[in-house]
Parts: sequence; structure tokens; C-alpha cells
Amino acid sequence: MRLAELGERSGVPIATIKYYLREGLLAPGERIGPRTSEYGEEHLRRLRLVRALIHVGGLPVAKVREVLGFVDDESLGRTIRLGAALWALPQEPHPDGASEGDASQDAEADDAHEAALGEVDRLTASLGWEAVRQLAPISPSHASLVAAMAALRRIGYPWRSELLAPHAELMHQVAVLEFDFMETFDSATEQVEAAVAAALLFEPMLRALHRLAQEEESVRRYGMS
Amino acid sequence: MRLAELGERSGVPIATIKYYLREGLLAPGERIGPRTSEYGEEHLRRLRLVRALIHVGGLPVAKVREVLGFVDDESLGRTIRLGAALWALPQEPHPDGASEGDASQDAEADDAHEAALGEVDRLTASLGWEAVRQLAPISPSHASLVAAMAALRRIGYPWRSELLAPHAELMHQVAVLEFDFMETFDSATEQVEAAVAAALLFEPMLRALHRLAQEEESVRRYGMS
Repeated sequence: MRLAELGERSGVPIATIKYYLREGLLAPGERIGPRTSEYGEEHLRRLRLVRALIHVGGLPVAKVREVLGFVDDESLGRTIRLGAALWALPQEPHPDGASEGDASQDAEADDAHEAALGEVDRLTASLGWEAVRQLAPISPSHASLVAAMAALRRIGYPWRSELLAPHAELMHQVAVLEFDFMETFDSATEQVEAAVAAALLFEPMLRALHRLAQEEESVRRYGMS
Repeated sequence: MRLAELGERSGVPIATIKYYLREGLLAPGERIGPRTSEYGEEHLRRLRLVRALIHVGGLPVAKVREVLGFVDDESLGRTIRLGAALWALPQEPHPDGASEGDASQDAEADDAHEAALGEVDRLTASLGWEAVRQLAPISPSHASLVAAMAALRRIGYPWRSELLAPHAELMHQVAVLEFDFMETFDSATEQVEAAVAAALLFEPMLRALHRLAQEEESVRRYGMS
């Protein structure tokens, strides 16, 4: 298809598409004349992903380029390719209960961090998440979980890992659903694209579903008033 | 206990506790002398929740007062009391794929919203979430889910509700775990406090667990490279 059709089918203004082309977020079309190029379905798909990363994920252009670099790198193994793309997405801001500043705060913060690290270690061991345990030193998600548990501990909620195990099992079931869905796509590149889109776009839906499920369960247990 | 002990046991500086007292986030202690008051376990518990709302939830003081107003209102039924406190927490920012501004955008946005509303309606009907369906017109979580689905549709991912049903069932299982945990606390006030703390503090952990589960599943399916 020509540029005009790409604009029409994607709903993205031509000027925006040209900007993405200049910034290298979209591969150039196939040149078929001095001033015309031909674009394919993969351009349409990529345009959709770029819009998701920018408009839903709120990623700056440089970050989008980084994520897409991993998505497109066919020399990487699947897990690395996927993991690198996902790890380049914005991470959970670290909740921080240690900002009230008194003298003993630093030592306390370290204690909370150490304790949280131990809890997460026990949790992943009890779950048999061997890959997670191996990736722990470099995984930003692992760091997020430790930070969240440390923040809880610091403000006086010392959650124990056993309490999280059933939640972790349920989130694993969610991940299995996601990978099953991902594998309905044909090529490895499409699958990695779908995984990035899902990571970005499914999370807000999961959170909304979680809160709706709380509403439902509350009414089932305590009635409507 | 006296103020000094409350400060020590909570880890919150005395000046901060006095500020919370002045702002009405913490009930006054029982006056036992012209310059001394006595504080109880409920003050310690409340202090923990206030810190969670401010330091982890990032809520401004006025919002904390609003949330606590619902937590403390024993005249309300359990669902309303819990629901009002949870609804006063910060909501998911609405993802918005409709910000590229061309002429047909408004009409398209309306179409996407209508379609998303229909999808969510089919989803909640198929799940049998009757309470959610009744609360739909006033629930901010329902609005978040519709907005998330509309945003997807607008950027070219028209997700159908069947794809979300298994996720919704899993999130319901998470909610059941949370309510079971909540009910291990004695009084209704403590239970509502625990629910608010969990809503605020569990969500970052669930997200981190979700991403860790994706790592684990990726390695299980495709190996470590």
C-alpha cells in the first residue's frame, strides 16, 4: 500500500507517520519510484505498536527505539529478546516508605531491604521459580518486588512470603494465558510484538478487573449496603 | 502509651505525629494530664495506615482525610464503607489513544467508547458479576476498564471480551484471597483498614509478581537464551 493508504488504515496522520519514519521507529517502505514507496502489513502492525508504546505507555521516542531494537534483533534468543524488550518498558516506581528522615533511617532501610530480599528468596524457592531465581540479580521486576516488600516492612506491615505464594501462583496462571495468546501469532517478531503490547496494555485492564472483582466479592459477602 | 513511646514504636518522628494530630489524620489521645495524653494500639495501627497512604500511595493530606472518613464511618454498611474508601484511592490514569488530533477523532473516540462499553457489558454478564453490573454507572473501576478497552480499540487492538474472561476469573480468585485475609482481623474498622492498605500495597506486588511470572514462563517455554 502507499503512504496515504497506510495513514487511512492505521488512523495515524501522514505527518506523524513521516515523523516515525525519520526517527527510525518505522522501517522505510520499499522504494517503487522516485517519490513513492510501498508499505506492507508489517508496517501497519508496527505503527500500532509504536502508538501503543507512545500513547498508552507514555514512552519517550528514544525509549521506543530501544524497545523496538530488542523486538527486531533476530540474533537474540527468544527469552532474551522478549526479556530485554519487557525490561526496557517503564518499571513500577519504587514505593519508598523511608522518606521521613531521622537518624536511624538508613540502617533501618537496609534492614528492611535485607529482610525483604530474604522473603522474596523464600517465596521464589517455595514456588520453584528457578528461572526467576537465576535472573534475580539483573531483573528489574525482582528489584521492584523486593522494594515493594521492603517499603511495607518499613511502614510497619511485615508481610511474610507465605501470604504471597497463592497470589504468585495466580499471576503465573495469568502469564500462561498470555503466552498461549502470544503463540497464536505466526512469526517470532510478531510474537514478541504481541508480548510487548500485552505487557503494556493488559496491565491497566488487569488492575481494573482486580478492583471490579473486589467490588463483586464485597457485595457477595456483605450485601449491597 | 505516651507520645514518645508512640513515636518509638511506630518509627514516626514526634513532629510528624503532631502534624497528623493537628490535621485530624490521627484521633487525639486520651487526656490524662494538662500536658500529657495516652495513646493506644489503635493509634499505632492508624499511624501505619496514614504512612502507607501518604508514602506509598502518594495521597495528599486532604485525600487521606477523605479516605479515613469512610473507614471510620460506622453508620455505613460494610460494602459502602469499603467501597467508598477504595473508590477514594487514586484511580488508574485513563490511557488515552485519542490524542493525535485529526478531524474524525471525536467521532472515532465515541465509537471506540461505545464498543468498549458493549464488550465490558458482555464480559460482566458472562462472568455473572451481578454486583459489578449494578454498580457500573458509578464505579470508577468500571470506568477504568472501559477506558482501557476503548484506548486499545482506538490504537487498533480491538480486544474481545472472551479473551479477558479467564483473566477476570483469576483476578476474582485474588480478590477472594484478599477478603479471606481481611477477615482474619477482629473489628470491622480494622478489616476496612486492612482492605485499604492491601489495595494500596498489594497492587505493586501483584504487578511485580506478574512480570516475574512472565520471566519464569518465558524460560520454561523457550530456554534461558
